Amino acid sequence: MKFHKILIANRGEIAVRIIRTCRELGIQSVAVYSEADRDSLHVRLADEAYCIGPTLSKDSYLNLTNLMSVATLTGCDAIHPGYGFLAENADFAEIVESCNMSFIGPSPQAISKMGDKSVAKRTMKDADVPVIPGSDGLVEDMDEALRIARSIGYPIIIKATAGGGGKGIRIAEDEESLIQQITTAQQEAQKAFGNAGVYLEKYLTGMKHVEIQIMADKHGNAVHLFERDCSVQRRRQKLVEEAPCPIMTPGLRERMGQAAVRAAKAVDYSGAGTLEFLLGPDGNFYFMEMNTRIQVEHPVTEMITGVDLIKEMISVAEGNPLSIKQEDLVIDGWAIECRINAEDAERGFMPSPGQIQFYLPPGGLGVRIDSSAYPGYVISPHYDSMIAKLIVWGATREEAIARMKRALSEFAIDGIKTTIPFHLKLLNHPLFVKGDFDIKFLEEHDVNAPQAPAASGSIDI
Amino acid sequence: MKFHKILIANRGEIAVRIIRTCRELGIQSVAVYSEADRDSLHVRLADEAYCIGPTLSKDSYLNLTNLMSVATLTGCDAIHPGYGFLAENADFAEIVESCNMSFIGPSPQAISKMGDKSVAKRTMKDADVPVIPGSDGLVEDMDEALRIARSIGYPIIIKATAGGGGKGIRIAEDEESLIQQITTAQQEAQKAFGNAGVYLEKYLTGMKHVEIQIMADKHGNAVHLFERDCSVQRRRQKLVEEAPCPIMTPGLRERMGQAAVRAAKAVDYSGAGTLEFLLGPDGNFYFMEMNTRIQVEHPVTEMITGVDLIKEMISVAEGNPLSIKQEDLVIDGWAIECRINAEDAERGFMPSPGQIQFYLPPGGLGVRIDSSAYPGYVISPHYDSMIAKLIVWGATREEAIARMKRALSEFAIDGIKTTIPFHLKLLNHPLFVKGDFDIKFLEEHDVNAPQAPAASGSIDI
Repeated sequence: MKFHKILIANRGEIAVRIIRTCRELGIQSVAVYSEADRDSLHVRLADEAYCIGPTLSKDSYLNLTNLMSVATLTGCDAIHPGYGFLAENADFAEIVESCNMSFIGPSPQAISKMGDKSVAKRTMKDADVPVIPGSDGLVEDMDEALRIARSIGYPIIIKATAGGGGKGIRIAEDEESLIQQITTAQQEAQKAFGNAGVYLEKYLTGMKHVEIQIMADKHGNAVHLFERDCSVQRRRQKLVEEAPCPIMTPGLRERMGQAAVRAAKAVDYSGAGTLEFLLGPDGNFYFMEMNTRIQVEHPVTEMITGVDLIKEMISVAEGNPLSIKQEDLVIDGWAIECRINAEDAERGFMPSPGQIQFYLPPGGLGVRIDSSAYPGYVISPHYDSMIAKLIVWGATREEAIARMKRALSEFAIDGIKTTIPFHLKLLNHPLFVKGDFDIKFLEEHDVNAPQAPAASGSIDI
Repeated sequence: MKFHKILIANRGEIAVRIIRTCRELGIQSVAVYSEADRDSLHVRLADEAYCIGPTLSKDSYLNLTNLMSVATLTGCDAIHPGYGFLAENADFAEIVESCNMSFIGPSPQAISKMGDKSVAKRTMKDADVPVIPGSDGLVEDMDEALRIARSIGYPIIIKATAGGGGKGIRIAEDEESLIQQITTAQQEAQKAFGNAGVYLEKYLTGMKHVEIQIMADKHGNAVHLFERDCSVQRRRQKLVEEAPCPIMTPGLRERMGQAAVRAAKAVDYSGAGTLEFLLGPDGNFYFMEMNTRIQVEHPVTEMITGVDLIKEMISVAEGNPLSIKQEDLVIDGWAIECRINAEDAERGFMPSPGQIQFYLPPGGLGVRIDSSAYPGYVISPHYDSMIAKLIVWGATREEAIARMKRALSEFAIDGIKTTIPFHLKLLNHPLFVKGDFDIKFLEEHDVNAPQAPAASGSIDI
């Protein structure tokens, strides 16, 4: 079936991103918004837009009843959840399908399996996808925990099975701290997620966060679209992503890509998904988790493959076979994404909401802007602080870095603080330039340290 | 040698375009501006900027003395002329070289040879590049003119050898009008260009304007970067350009590309250049002229090849061999450019200068903006009315058209009239969609005719 109208159950740049592809496909788009988002760009760009509740997300963007009412009343065929909010909520996917609409994403079963970290890990192990050495599922008692820890060696990482995105994680350096931390972790997990289950993993060092983009249809076909290196993280929040990964080799890419496709097939996956791996300096890689949705950093993959991932997601949800074949996919050049957040990096990345007084994004060859910002837009303190994604393409990594620095230096946003100055410093850092960084890079290097004055010539009207 | 500082002898979007590549290369940029352009974006983005005279171009952008003073005093190694103004002025190129600076373009000899249309035509004929049937050089007397006209058949086009860009052209339908028109054409040419010389050509119909981008170095190497179709013209002014050409075949592309490379080699060309051809429905093509500079529409070539043409021009001017090999160049996808002019298309494309009140260019996958506009910018009536180039890339022509329509519908410019509504109508025209148009398309079809209301959802804040 061909969709005629899609509700986008999200806000900000990802809602704008999805509306754009809908328009290119001739599909009507329905935006939803909270009271605080009345003047948002996604509201203005969609064909229709409806308020679904007060400012707080739980009352609006997470309000299932209101979302489904709008979708039903406007005659939508499908709902795209974007990322965050309800994107990985299996119940939501199930409700959408039960209302005879299509959920543009995987089945509720696939979401559930990957959402439970210990089930996911077991499933991956069975599919011959390398996992981090650790407990086989949840830790039953302290004796078992100590036995496993001894066999894999310290340090040990304790993870809540219901956690994610860096939440519910503790590290034990030795037996004594393990005994203490497990109890605390279980209590915390019970409180935060309503599920006390924890599991153990070897704590690996010098690791890169390398993820594989996959795309699968409902007919059993799956392809991978190569890797993204997302190792530049602050408190497990990605700040810069690139594709390909600077230390990748063709053989390793093949092995990681095939593992990702096996993973997708193991859960009868359909749609866009990401297998997140830790990649060690020895070339070994380990499954961390699967994100069963489109990701913030998907544009870097689009820039090196030419594939519109949202378009493909919609096509797959319509029931079409994949339009792309593994053998036709090639990496063309290099892409980098910087997340421009309304934050003051020099003051601990403190949020900096407020009104944008002057706004002029950079342009020219190889520069892409995915943003919901505009001159006069008021950034609300109630939502994610990311206001724009600046993505560049270059024929080589060197060209991409030079282009990103040029584009950052040109990007004019007045009235609020942004992470642009931070990104400029990062892109000048010798280790970043060399591609020699792991997930601890920002912890171990003071990128915000004062530097020579920024390049002149940036616009500041 | 490596350039350290480049003066950009231009304004508007092409100055911004060149500054961007300079910055990516770590080369200092020097902007020049007229009094009217004090607040222009190129002034703000360059590392240094100097006023070179009053508003009128002849007093500023064409003021050789002032340009050379700034270049000398600021210690520039090279001058990039952009397009228009002094870009195809052989004297300027010679003066630059005589001041021990590099002219980023071909030699004065190559400019001269191609600047004189009848010399150019003879040179091309000698290089086995097909030319339009006509007089062998200038027409000496009326008897010769009548003899040639009889041998090639009417209608006949009369062109001033010193003309260009549609100026100095007349058409004769029969002997009587030929006798009359030649006299008038010679008088006009003497007055307009100080050169009465005219030549004759067969007037061809159903022709497309298809041009080949070439790039050559100072070591005798030359490549072509495929074709652009620039047939959508109004009064010989291009409005929309695309690459590749919808009716191109691999064999024809090969023949046209090789002819363009032969043409470049025939004049010892170096730098970026364009061979403009007329392509007939029978697959025959004829040399029109060579533009010995970067062209407005160069971005569509960059989008399908990934080559930064300005970067390559600079590299070649530095004396480096070409960084690109013919066998490595491939066409990836499809690109279209719409020239966004400050004009009211519904009122005969009347210029619409004034202040831009709100400005938000489109973004997202496959969208590139080359512009010197910004919120609050005042468009001067004294210069070219083009304020932005909107360029899109798609995996196919169909995707590129859909993306361009989406991007146009999103492009918000308040305070002045622009050609955005015209472009939206054009892109919906069935003949444009089919790729079935020649250089007479806009003359023969009323694209501006009222249509169904434009797509909803465009931003208008």
